[in-house]
Amino acid sequence: MSPFRGSVPFTEEWRHFRLERDEAGVLTVTLDRPDKLNALTFESYADLRDLLAELPQRGDTRAVLLRGEGRGFCSGGDVNEIIGATLQMRPDQLLDFTRMTGQVVRAMRECPIPIVAAIHGIAAGAGSVLALAADFRVVARSARFAFLFTKVGLAGADMGAAYLLPRLVGLGHATKLLMLGDTVDAVTADRYGLVSELVEDEELDATAGALARRLAEGPAFALAQTKALLTQELDMSLAASVELEAMTQALLMKSADYAEFHAAFTGKRPPKWQGR
Amino acid sequence: MSPFRGSVPFTEEWRHFRLERDEAGVLTVTLDRPDKLNALTFESYADLRDLLAELPQRGDTRAVLLRGEGRGFCSGGDVNEIIGATLQMRPDQLLDFTRMTGQVVRAMRECPIPIVAAIHGIAAGAGSVLALAADFRVVARSARFAFLFTKVGLAGADMGAAYLLPRLVGLGHATKLLMLGDTVDAVTADRYGLVSELVEDEELDATAGALARRLAEGPAFALAQTKALLTQELDMSLAASVELEAMTQALLMKSADYAEFHAAFTGKRPPKWQGR
Amino acid sequence: MSPFRGSVPFTEEWRHFRLERDEAGVLTVTLDRPDKLNALTFESYADLRDLLAELPQRGDTRAVLLRGEGRGFCSGGDVNEIIGATLQMRPDQLLDFTRMTGQVVRAMRECPIPIVAAIHGIAAGAGSVLALAADFRVVARSARFAFLFTKVGLAGADMGAAYLLPRLVGLGHATKLLMLGDTVDAVTADRYGLVSELVEDEELDATAGALARRLAEGPAFALAQTKALLTQELDMSLAASVELEAMTQALLMKSADYAEFHAAFTGKRPPKWQGR
Repeated sequence: MSPFRGSVPFTEEWRHFRLERDEAGVLTVTLDRPDKLNALTFESYADLRDLLAELPQRGDTRAVLLRGEGRGFCSGGDVNEIIGATLQMRPDQLLDFTRMTGQVVRAMRECPIPIVAAIHGIAAGAGSVLALAADFRVVARSARFAFLFTKVGLAGADMGAAYLLPRLVGLGHATKLLMLGDTVDAVTADRYGLVSELVEDEELDATAGALARRLAEGPAFALAQTKALLTQELDMSLAASVELEAMTQALLMKSADYAEFHAAFTGKRPPKWQGR
Repeated sequence: MSPFRGSVPFTEEWRHFRLERDEAGVLTVTLDRPDKLNALTFESYADLRDLLAELPQRGDTRAVLLRGEGRGFCSGGDVNEIIGATLQMRPDQLLDFTRMTGQVVRAMRECPIPIVAAIHGIAAGAGSVLALAADFRVVARSARFAFLFTKVGLAGADMGAAYLLPRLVGLGHATKLLMLGDTVDAVTADRYGLVSELVEDEELDATAGALARRLAEGPAFALAQTKALLTQELDMSLAASVELEAMTQALLMKSADYAEFHAAFTGKRPPKWQGR
Repeated sequence: MSPFRGSVPFTEEWRHFRLERDEAGVLTVTLDRPDKLNALTFESYADLRDLLAELPQRGDTRAVLLRGEGRGFCSGGDVNEIIGATLQMRPDQLLDFTRMTGQVVRAMRECPIPIVAAIHGIAAGAGSVLALAADFRVVARSARFAFLFTKVGLAGADMGAAYLLPRLVGLGHATKLLMLGDTVDAVTADRYGLVSELVEDEELDATAGALARRLAEGPAFALAQTKALLTQELDMSLAASVELEAMTQALLMKSADYAEFHAAFTGKRPPKWQGR
């Protein structure tokens, strides 16, 4: 647990998704409304935001695996529960809602723990943006992505999609995906650069689980800093990035894991990472 | 028509390209000097700049289709009319000219109306940058791109090409295209990420026209904001982008088109977009 | 030679790599410790940094070709000579070292001379970042890239890799390469966008050499400005980039090479570039 804790207690019960933590420190977050294709609700957005804020302080989680129960990953915001409800809201309430959804994406990108999304079936709307904000997308051949916001009359720029997508697939493909909102299959998404690993459907759970375990068993401090710099340097200059990387590596060269690598290499044995 | 008009009249006659506007609001701009492979002149640059400034205020155009008459899309600046003339110019006149060409690209990227380029035959020099600055590139198999600026002794960085191209195809491919200036065929351009849709030559007009009509019939306000944020967020931080997207969606949730989507969905009918 | 020289002499002897300069102005830099797979040392980092600072002032070099002797390109920092030594260093010494390695990458990107890397066998660790920082990567089918920093307990963000790699291959592929540190083959690297030209092994030297010669014989001032703007505009806005490109082209339109193009075109002969 982090020593930098104040009065706020940890949350004992997360009610809007299912959680399992294994002995390696992999926390599996399962979107679990299969009858609604795991459509998100106000409460599940809030829980994702809050979980990601708590996790780094708990010290018990070294990788997150995000997946969906049933026929698909996540169909996005529910038409009735979200769209219907927002039609009744005041401007300030709407902004509270849209800010919360964006905070989920910021929390995913700024969380020092690697996040693997396992995608099968549909990843639509906010579901496609959750996939986009993960560090790794293990994608089954059945999967389809639909950044369908313009189809409901909203901007394709939702939850940071217009920031992240061009940085993964280039401005041309991002424009096509976000302005048209059409569904693309897994092979097309892979060709665009949206897929970390493309697998057969029956291999999805095993492959995504193995990747999450590998990350959990890796050098956590080094991985956290790699993620942090990949995230931050998207907006930085070359000169500042090179300086930040020099500072980062100098600090990591004082870490136990760096010494452990050298000892293991010299001793011809695999390193035992401590993440510090 | 925009209510935010002052004294400046609209232009009645554009003399340096051909214009057709259909009932859906698609404005087809045809570069129409087929005997010169649609080479650009000082006047056609100026007309492109001015047309794109006027269009958003006219209120009669919901998509632009840019195409070339004859054997190719556009061979760029004419060697005699442009290069020859610039050799006689003073430094301040040269800067006036190069700034104008850049303003065309800025106008294309900052115009709230989606722009589809239909590319066949050669898109060379400034012609390749016009293609690059469009939102969509429908590309015939016959098409070739040549960012040939270094071949005339100029920088490959022309009209914003060194800004836009790396953001579409990555820095590696962009370096190759801009430093060498070689001609690449449509399949290679597609592999790099420069192509929105690759079609057979005989399908080019139909496919590009159908895409422009689809955009014209779409939710114009949502599409305009999608384009604006894709353009702006290339230079913004994640945090600022997420905030901008939250503000954008909150505003759009008060639009008629968002309510129309919900009514249409509930009524099991297609939405009728008003673009407001 | 540059007229802007002070008291500092040129270096007569570079001891930590092999240098050859041909009549076209191609400087071939050969990493030449084949028994160590051309592992870098403190001294070879320093020599790369200093060479790239001197070169633009010498006026005798129009292209750099970077290659490795023996079975591979470069295996990165040596485990004993670098990792072992850094374990004994104070924090300020470590930062001096990591800053120096970053300065090599900045010098490669900010040097106005085009750099071609010829890659065969392994390009690992710092070796993969040297390849990444070149303008062109001619890659043999035998080549493999390994951004293996996390495997030694360091951040994948080393020497600017977390800045450059997402700008070449997109954030998704960059995350995979830098967080996992796995070895990827030449075909995969090509699919990601890391390869300028993929060749058979026996063609590597000829192809990379021909490209370097072509660049050396090209319009040097135009090529230098193309490289400079590709580098700088990664961190600039569209508006500022368009203005910078307008200034650049106006200046180049006053160059001898631009006039030479027009004279050669009119005279139906190839241009003779002077690089000014």
